[in-house]
Amino acid sequence: MAPTPDWVKHLKPSGAQGEDVLTQERAGSNVPVEQLNELLFTREVIERKRRILGILKSHQVFDKSQNYFSGRIERFERALAREKKLRLLIKEHNWDPDEFRTATELVSEPGPYGLHDSMFKVTLDGQGTPEQQEMFLTLANDYKIIGCYAQTELGHGSNVRGLETTATWNPQDKTFTIHSPHLTASKWWIGSLGRTANYACVMAQLIINGKSHGPHPFVVQVRDMKTHEPLENIHVGDIGPKFGYNTMDNGFLLFNKVKIPHISMLARFSRVDPATNAYVRQGSPSLIYGTLTWVRSTIVMQAGSVLARGVTIATRYCAVRRQFQDRDAPQGEKGESPVLNYTMVQIRLLPLLAATFALHFTGAAMMALYQESQKKMNTRDASKDSSMRRPGPEETESGSDILADLHASSCGLKALSSTIAAEGLEACRRACGGHGYSSFSGIGSWYADYLPTITWEGDNYMLTQQVARYLLKSARAVLANKGPANDTTRILSHFHSRSEVGCAFDIIGSDSDLVDAFAWRASFLTFEALKHRDEHKKPWNDLLVDFYRLSKAHSQYMVTKSFYEALQSQATTSKINTDTLELLKKLFRLFALHTLEQEASEFYASGACSKHQISLARTNTVMRLLKEIRPHAVKLVDAWGFDDWVLDSSLGRSDGKVYEDMFYRASELNPLNRITVDPYPDSAVLFRRVEGEVKSKL
Amino acid sequence: MAPTPDWVKHLKPSGAQGEDVLTQERAGSNVPVEQLNELLFTREVIERKRRILGILKSHQVFDKSQNYFSGRIERFERALAREKKLRLLIKEHNWDPDEFRTATELVSEPGPYGLHDSMFKVTLDGQGTPEQQEMFLTLANDYKIIGCYAQTELGHGSNVRGLETTATWNPQDKTFTIHSPHLTASKWWIGSLGRTANYACVMAQLIINGKSHGPHPFVVQVRDMKTHEPLENIHVGDIGPKFGYNTMDNGFLLFNKVKIPHISMLARFSRVDPATNAYVRQGSPSLIYGTLTWVRSTIVMQAGSVLARGVTIATRYCAVRRQFQDRDAPQGEKGESPVLNYTMVQIRLLPLLAATFALHFTGAAMMALYQESQKKMNTRDASKDSSMRRPGPEETESGSDILADLHASSCGLKALSSTIAAEGLEACRRACGGHGYSSFSGIGSWYADYLPTITWEGDNYMLTQQVARYLLKSARAVLANKGPANDTTRILSHFHSRSEVGCAFDIIGSDSDLVDAFAWRASFLTFEALKHRDEHKKPWNDLLVDFYRLSKAHSQYMVTKSFYEALQSQATTSKINTDTLELLKKLFRLFALHTLEQEASEFYASGACSKHQISLARTNTVMRLLKEIRPHAVKLVDAWGFDDWVLDSSLGRSDGKVYEDMFYRASELNPLNRITVDPYPDSAVLFRRVEGEVKSKL
Repeated sequence: MAPTPDWVKHLKPSGAQGEDVLTQERAGSNVPVEQLNELLFTREVIERKRRILGILKSHQVFDKSQNYFSGRIERFERALAREKKLRLLIKEHNWDPDEFRTATELVSEPGPYGLHDSMFKVTLDGQGTPEQQEMFLTLANDYKIIGCYAQTELGHGSNVRGLETTATWNPQDKTFTIHSPHLTASKWWIGSLGRTANYACVMAQLIINGKSHGPHPFVVQVRDMKTHEPLENIHVGDIGPKFGYNTMDNGFLLFNKVKIPHISMLARFSRVDPATNAYVRQGSPSLIYGTLTWVRSTIVMQAGSVLARGVTIATRYCAVRRQFQDRDAPQGEKGESPVLNYTMVQIRLLPLLAATFALHFTGAAMMALYQESQKKMNTRDASKDSSMRRPGPEETESGSDILADLHASSCGLKALSSTIAAEGLEACRRACGGHGYSSFSGIGSWYADYLPTITWEGDNYMLTQQVARYLLKSARAVLANKGPANDTTRILSHFHSRSEVGCAFDIIGSDSDLVDAFAWRASFLTFEALKHRDEHKKPWNDLLVDFYRLSKAHSQYMVTKSFYEALQSQATTSKINTDTLELLKKLFRLFALHTLEQEASEFYASGACSKHQISLARTNTVMRLLKEIRPHAVKLVDAWGFDDWVLDSSLGRSDGKVYEDMFYRASELNPLNRITVDPYPDSAVLFRRVEGEVKSKL
Repeated sequence: MAPTPDWVKHLKPSGAQGEDVLTQERAGSNVPVEQLNELLFTREVIERKRRILGILKSHQVFDKSQNYFSGRIERFERALAREKKLRLLIKEHNWDPDEFRTATELVSEPGPYGLHDSMFKVTLDGQGTPEQQEMFLTLANDYKIIGCYAQTELGHGSNVRGLETTATWNPQDKTFTIHSPHLTASKWWIGSLGRTANYACVMAQLIINGKSHGPHPFVVQVRDMKTHEPLENIHVGDIGPKFGYNTMDNGFLLFNKVKIPHISMLARFSRVDPATNAYVRQGSPSLIYGTLTWVRSTIVMQAGSVLARGVTIATRYCAVRRQFQDRDAPQGEKGESPVLNYTMVQIRLLPLLAATFALHFTGAAMMALYQESQKKMNTRDASKDSSMRRPGPEETESGSDILADLHASSCGLKALSSTIAAEGLEACRRACGGHGYSSFSGIGSWYADYLPTITWEGDNYMLTQQVARYLLKSARAVLANKGPANDTTRILSHFHSRSEVGCAFDIIGSDSDLVDAFAWRASFLTFEALKHRDEHKKPWNDLLVDFYRLSKAHSQYMVTKSFYEALQSQATTSKINTDTLELLKKLFRLFALHTLEQEASEFYASGACSKHQISLARTNTVMRLLKEIRPHAVKLVDAWGFDDWVLDSSLGRSDGKVYEDMFYRASELNPLNRITVDPYPDSAVLFRRVEGEVKSKL
């Protein structure tokens, strides 16, 4: 590659320098960035992040400069090298689980040990007997075996009962035979399995004496511990490149009648008695629903900061970037405007900025509620004479009112929040104009890696059915004048009690009325759906679209409510000054009114507000809020506290050196510039020079 | 890589085989696929496609099997090799421009000669003098020089007037000095420039005697004709990887006071007189607006087929893929349902299927209108005593009524259609569930390559201002009782004439009323915006969001109208049978009513329809249309006629062998499976084996 000439190195961007622009932006706002940062994360977490970031930056293996240029194999190899290094650092610095999690978050890429650390160990821990934990978990904790969780199959995603892989009990020699009867039985999408894992926790249909007992977990060795080659009659490999997530080796796995010992079946909740060959149930793995609720709550919580990365990048770049003069600018005033001054940019970015806070506070509320439910359940559990130790998240058969409500909420909120985050990231990328398309924007790859979240842990479309089912059940309970006293029945009862009175919400003048309007619309849609199902006897399939809308409406209500309540709570108000609280309330209003406006026809239809109110909200309030929030935009994204090393974005640099960084990466780092081609077609060769070497091919 | 074992090769998918499923789907519909295919493309074009596809498939260089696996450099090199081969094939088969265009469409990837063939040659042709054409265009046609079009700069996108690169006239030696005064002056995003081009048509500010005359085009050599190294004082290279479009070498370019001869400035419309050193204008390059209109019309036309690729893939896969039982299925009925039977899938896919036809007919109508306007202008031109030959698309100063209307329409429709296509493709990808995320779905890369279309040829957000400006102007003309008689003034006049009467559209019972409702809403928004701007004197910037909505509404009206009219026209009805025409009308209704429902609040607000109508459309008509169209979905996508080679998708295979193909690509083609890693962290090396070779690194 021709080195960057000296005359280029002396060039600067024209006009106001990005650095000065961002300095001015920051000087023009009184937002106390640190205070707000601490409100979001606590001082302890921020300090931890800072400390671990310092360690990561000091190791060459975590250098990101080639990330955007590398192909699949290189990226995977480097990701694996980083995973290894992280495990060495755990020992070296004696990191606790929180510190380790912080480190992986800062590295910000899916890593090949990912499913080992999460699902493989969690499953052993939750579903293995003490003997099995001794046998497998100890080794797994030491990375002597590397595992994964093999559930999904080529032909089977969300529907676990449809899995085809079988584990047949052999009474003669007290073993199981694991087998893949069809091509569609191949395990597929299994994280960490493609190249890395040598063990898998395989979900397979347990068959005893010709009878199927449904899917059960089996711990199976799949690769040789020394050569790392697949064991006999096992076909395993990587499933190929994906839209994102290419640092992860998602794998496939097929078995040709492979015998595994009795100990392989995780036996905490059910087992085969080797003496009688009988299937024995001992308790139920219902804790899985608790775990799922917890996992979904973390997705909600993370959605805010996932989106905040994109919003940070786009906001800073739109403050630095100038384009066109304001059409109404006085004749004398020269110069192009920062694009962040254009209302068309503001309406795309600022509601997303508001959404980052809305999702953050919603996630926090969910986590708090989850912990509260666990505490109550544990208290009750402890008071019972329970012979079985049941640590960790769980749900009793009867089901706590809180947890049932939380489970439904977590489904709907997981779907809504991950959709907001994914689509918001793409909106941020587009708000960066042409340069948003460059890998150096840092948004594209982050978006692509995040996308699976809308499909996994419950497909966002599928989940909405669970929410609707719960809401219909709650509405039936309200009509029958019974049912638990939780927030859902509260809003449904209120709506029902006013069915002949209607409502009057001051959506622009009162924040609590605004929340109530969301509750009203969700309740309206619930009773509409109930009427279709129970009175009109409509087929379930014909109602899926209504259910989807219903789930969305209910989840939007919850986000609005959580954001509102967070700003009322002492936990918030005690930590920030009045001006900042007022600014956050503006963000609340922007989020709620902008959402309301997007869904205006449902709000009309439910009677929650009038045409005139919507019109005022749209042309007046929202536009005014944009103007009022605009001066604080840069500091509000600063409050999320992303380090430049983490963002890895030219456009999102905290010092505003956007163009210098774009240019540096293209001119100094880009390996494509190391090759020289023969451009003429009739030479009929691809004459290629790579740093001295000459190649020729077609 | 371990070869796929024999026991795996014998495995088949379980249940109904994809092949049989699609055969049954096709047997269940009476759509005459060939007839519909011919309606879309004509028999001649289909035959041409078939012939050229045969040629392409016979050459190894066009083999696609490694496309999804390759890194940036490999992909670029292979794309360049393909471009070269295509040029050899032009000669070998004596292809005309249509045949060549067909070939590049079938290859379906951005190629490094792309900007040479389009903008570089078009600019020479349109803006060069005969002498310049003789000098440059002849060589360009023979690929003796490879050019590009260097307009956009690092700091300047849409605003051409803001370009920083200067071309200063030197009266002493009759040369220009091309210079990049700042880093932001670097040309950026220039297609074909990164590695391939040795010439560039550079847009630079012409400066004579200290006075700037605005941007002008200069033909500049940038690389050595033999060594292909950059010339002295020129810094040129590739700008780095992007979200997509990575087979193209978008480049940067900086000049350090480079002298170029007088002949370099393209002088058809303006030149520097070397004798007097004066700037001389001779006519205006207004034809550029005509060209832009034409380019945008092709974007509209292509949007239909761009989207149709994704819809084809998703529809076929959703027919093959089975998941869950229908909740209401009778107790005895076993088996999972094809996901295409679920209304939640139908509501995401079938309106997009309808949109493919809507966009196709809209594009065709635009092209026809464009050609008509050209014919009229040429007739008038010929009748004038014009000393200047002005071939090709153009616009006179006064402006033809048709062309002015067409120009505004093309802006709005470019924005709307490319947004529908891009977002539709992503919706198709998601409708494929987890497997949509695999590169083998074929949608992700197609989407990523298409995305720039929403930014280039006029950023979709920026363009809407031009549409609004035109609509406001037309509305003012209507209020003043004057203005040209085109469709826009017609609908605005009609709305205005009924301002005290209102309207009554039978949107569900009458297709023409449905179109009129779209016209009514667009007109309503136009007069609302006019009121804000002219009466309330609102700043332009405060109205950008309204303008965006207005442009969208007007463009949706045009698509609806074009689709409706196409189905009324003899050109359509004479070519297809009655059943098919009825089916297309259902697609029209689905497209229009689904769009109306999405924008319901604007339709309410304008009074174009009632709450009850919307509610009926939503819960009744749209759901019924989904049911009626569903059985024909597979054949309707078949009618788009994509060859499997073109789609390059496991999920979209026309024979339904979805799982076999996914598996084949993962197990046989995936190069990541050629490496074996050492999985243990404490080995502290990345022990790596690649086909015998052993590497070690961290």
